[in-house]
Amino acid sequence: MKASQLIAPTLKEAPADAEVPSHILLVRGGFIRRLATGSYNYLPLGLRVLKKIENIVREELDRAGAQEILMPVVQPANLWQESGRWDVMGPEMLRLKDRHERDYCLSPTQEEVVTDLVRRVIVSYKQLPLNLYHIQTKFRDEIRPRFGLMRSREFLMKDGYSFHLDEDSFEESYQAMFDAYSAMLEKIGLTYRAVDADPGNMGDGDSHEFHVLAEAGEDELAFSPTSDYAANVEKAVAPRIEDDHAVEEMATVDTPNAKTIDAVSKLLGVESRRCVKTLIVRGESEPVALVLRGDHELNEAKAGRLPGILRPLEFASDEEIIAAITVSPGSIGPVGLGLPVYVDHSAAALNSFVCGANVEEKHHTGVNWDRDAGHVEPVDIRNVVEGDQAVDGSGPLAFRRGIEVGHIFKLGTKYTESMDVTIQDDGGNDIMPIMGCYGFGVSRTVAAVVEQCHDENGIAWPDAVAPYAVHILALNAHRSADVATTATAVYERLLARGVEVLLDDRDERPGVKFADSDLIGIPHRLTIGDRGLKNGIVEYTHRRTGEKEDVELARLDEFLNERMSGSA
Amino acid sequence: MKASQLIAPTLKEAPADAEVPSHILLVRGGFIRRLATGSYNYLPLGLRVLKKIENIVREELDRAGAQEILMPVVQPANLWQESGRWDVMGPEMLRLKDRHERDYCLSPTQEEVVTDLVRRVIVSYKQLPLNLYHIQTKFRDEIRPRFGLMRSREFLMKDGYSFHLDEDSFEESYQAMFDAYSAMLEKIGLTYRAVDADPGNMGDGDSHEFHVLAEAGEDELAFSPTSDYAANVEKAVAPRIEDDHAVEEMATVDTPNAKTIDAVSKLLGVESRRCVKTLIVRGESEPVALVLRGDHELNEAKAGRLPGILRPLEFASDEEIIAAITVSPGSIGPVGLGLPVYVDHSAAALNSFVCGANVEEKHHTGVNWDRDAGHVEPVDIRNVVEGDQAVDGSGPLAFRRGIEVGHIFKLGTKYTESMDVTIQDDGGNDIMPIMGCYGFGVSRTVAAVVEQCHDENGIAWPDAVAPYAVHILALNAHRSADVATTATAVYERLLARGVEVLLDDRDERPGVKFADSDLIGIPHRLTIGDRGLKNGIVEYTHRRTGEKEDVELARLDEFLNERMSGSA
Repeated sequence: MKASQLIAPTLKEAPADAEVPSHILLVRGGFIRRLATGSYNYLPLGLRVLKKIENIVREELDRAGAQEILMPVVQPANLWQESGRWDVMGPEMLRLKDRHERDYCLSPTQEEVVTDLVRRVIVSYKQLPLNLYHIQTKFRDEIRPRFGLMRSREFLMKDGYSFHLDEDSFEESYQAMFDAYSAMLEKIGLTYRAVDADPGNMGDGDSHEFHVLAEAGEDELAFSPTSDYAANVEKAVAPRIEDDHAVEEMATVDTPNAKTIDAVSKLLGVESRRCVKTLIVRGESEPVALVLRGDHELNEAKAGRLPGILRPLEFASDEEIIAAITVSPGSIGPVGLGLPVYVDHSAAALNSFVCGANVEEKHHTGVNWDRDAGHVEPVDIRNVVEGDQAVDGSGPLAFRRGIEVGHIFKLGTKYTESMDVTIQDDGGNDIMPIMGCYGFGVSRTVAAVVEQCHDENGIAWPDAVAPYAVHILALNAHRSADVATTATAVYERLLARGVEVLLDDRDERPGVKFADSDLIGIPHRLTIGDRGLKNGIVEYTHRRTGEKEDVELARLDEFLNERMSGSA
Repeated sequence: MKASQLIAPTLKEAPADAEVPSHILLVRGGFIRRLATGSYNYLPLGLRVLKKIENIVREELDRAGAQEILMPVVQPANLWQESGRWDVMGPEMLRLKDRHERDYCLSPTQEEVVTDLVRRVIVSYKQLPLNLYHIQTKFRDEIRPRFGLMRSREFLMKDGYSFHLDEDSFEESYQAMFDAYSAMLEKIGLTYRAVDADPGNMGDGDSHEFHVLAEAGEDELAFSPTSDYAANVEKAVAPRIEDDHAVEEMATVDTPNAKTIDAVSKLLGVESRRCVKTLIVRGESEPVALVLRGDHELNEAKAGRLPGILRPLEFASDEEIIAAITVSPGSIGPVGLGLPVYVDHSAAALNSFVCGANVEEKHHTGVNWDRDAGHVEPVDIRNVVEGDQAVDGSGPLAFRRGIEVGHIFKLGTKYTESMDVTIQDDGGNDIMPIMGCYGFGVSRTVAAVVEQCHDENGIAWPDAVAPYAVHILALNAHRSADVATTATAVYERLLARGVEVLLDDRDERPGVKFADSDLIGIPHRLTIGDRGLKNGIVEYTHRRTGEKEDVELARLDEFLNERMSGSA
């Protein structure tokens, strides 16, 4: 392709609403243009990257034995009503009515549609296991779409679903998908981590997320630098931290205006780690108290799974709290509270601690669980923090930020049960198939690649997903017939060899061409200018490493062959 | 792929709602399954065909220099409001609101979005001409979706848009798209006609439709068997048919209960071709009369373009007619009518005719235009019929039915004007670019191929879009190790050579396998059975021609090579 004909409008300035490098660089590089909040037009360069990622995803899934289908974007409400999710899904699911006032939604996910399809086409257990996927436009009406392609409302997603007669068969597919996702991300050329994850509202079973490591990632990951252990902090197991403090006598003290752990800790001269916080959340029948060490943060995903607590987790309002225990937040504690209490392992390990006295502006000091507050069964309800030991005993956890591009789940029989899918096994017994669900964000991965592969001048695409492999910069070609002829000849020769090449034949200054080339980020650059040509030389630059080499025209093809097969 | 693993559930019975062969066979063959009214899941076989057509479309457009982009499905209302179409589009355009109550629609077409994009990315006339296309899910809320993929609500369409500084540049692109569409349809392997067409509500300029010829087509095409002339009957020029009848005297006769041309013709013993019909339609300021020969049909597309007539054409109600002319339909005629009148060429050529007398239950006979009804300027407002001469003088027209799979239009400056797109030409003058618009129904073409390529037993895919090239039927493989081993060996060898092959390894009777193979329609079939193998032979069958040949195993590869390169 010749740049003079390509619609790739580069910009000097970042768009006003762009906060992260991928959003800035994809717009500045002419890959995408915003249409509306959270929705983007893909220009030719952007679409080339998107298609390359899509094809890598397809290749790896086909290789793993999954079958590609295509389901509609507009879905009828009746299937969602059947599964019970029509009323459960929040406003992220965009609902609409057709001309006959029938209810539909724009596909946010496809469990219902695929389950309905499978119950209609499967007649025998011999057809299981079955692994179906599709790559399709999805819509989720995010309350705050942002970060360009990273959290948009309309996006391209691969979603896959598998159906199994038994656990062993499910485990096999789950592992095959785990391996396929790993292979995709390696093929794309990304540094990633597969981590234990919270399945959210998708089920209660196993779940792994695939994260591309990058500063702009919305998730925090905890991992062991010396073992395989890695988990989203939402899920990472927090260790019990033992307490070597002496057991003290309990006392009650005035704590006027001290409503926070910080204030209480300062006022009483007790470390915040020895002051517990008592949080009140909504429960199924009555409010529930959650107790953590003052220096720890509640993990809402973990707490939301405890019996008796509403899910997703919601904090009780001040009014609800006062109605239940006649004391307001800031002075609450587990001693004589009269509500169900869950205590985090590390809070439960304290020999002696400070807590609210359940009387306004008073706290207890020197509290001991068994002696003063009664016996508790400790649970894991906190986020892991710097200094925590990995649960596998491999040493202290490290932390990185990640962009979730893939998520694989065990769905169990949630949908086959609610949608009444049964199949007879070889013994004539009715079986409800077990399902797996496998999502991969195709358009989000475009952004994730940029987040991981850029520098201050622009993008540096990995070879596998670069919009073009080679960028020829013809310097001052309009003034030098030699440059124009050589650049065109090299371009034609590469095209004839099937190399994807972009020729910058625009009537622009060299400085503009270099800046645009750095911005667009094609891996292999050939600079053709008069000075070099006098010595029969073109300059090669590798975008990512910055490595430069003068290459004799005569051996250019050979040189590029080696370069392009060698780098990834 | 092995059939035992493929989700391709064939059915013996046609679905109850299916009226045309493509709908019946695509469902019966396991290519698609209905999700909701007018929306379908593509199963693996169906998706393979869809993708092949999509890729042929892409190849030809890329070759023609068009650039692929991707625009969102959900479009903001503001652009449609800017172009003025938000209020004009009927209920086919599905409107919806997001969580913030902002208005959107599901893309029925993209003129607004692409025009907005282009005005934001084009800075210089040097960037024109520009030809952009995308292949994307569209939604049109058809009042009566039917015929499966032929008229569905959610469908896959290629839509392209070109932008030009002048007419010559537009004509060049229009011709390039005409040629690309012809090349696509040839490559797919279809018999088609490009016909002059009515551009409908898309503009007033040139327009060509590409029709796949098939009985089930919704359009009627008129063409000259001896020249290039071809047109949709909506658009085909109707000739003036001269009248050699003598001029008679006008008289007024009673015609009790004779309200139709048939009744009047019988009652008076005058051929229906000599009885004119006078139709009253809604006009911009008052009703307008349209006069045709009794044996001709009104062409609403042609009449809808006449000055003073509302567009799209609407018939006046009986109440409106009586209010305007105090006589009811059945007795209306052009003599002394007191309304604007348009007369079709062939009606205007009559020397002497019968018409309503504008008095209830009375008609005039022997009417002559100039003498009795005043001078008229004839217009073309009728459908061509059997026996009409082609407008190019090449002889009588022939008729075929067609499925419209492509439509190319001249849009002129309709959108660049309403959306205020100007660009400076090289002389510094503001220019409004001229636009072209090029649609191709990718999913509809799946259906069109089946309509043209099937017989009573099933589909017969052309090679270029067949889901697989070769279908191996292993007969009674579970009882014969020889059959199983040979079939698998042939399958593996073909796969290794990159041939797309489906192996029917199911534990089914030979009759079921033959029937399914005919139904699914893979072009080249190899039947491997014990009887043949005893003589070292497999049977080759060509699905379309039915041609059979016994092929020695030893020369099977060579034979298939020849066959598959030779047939299309």
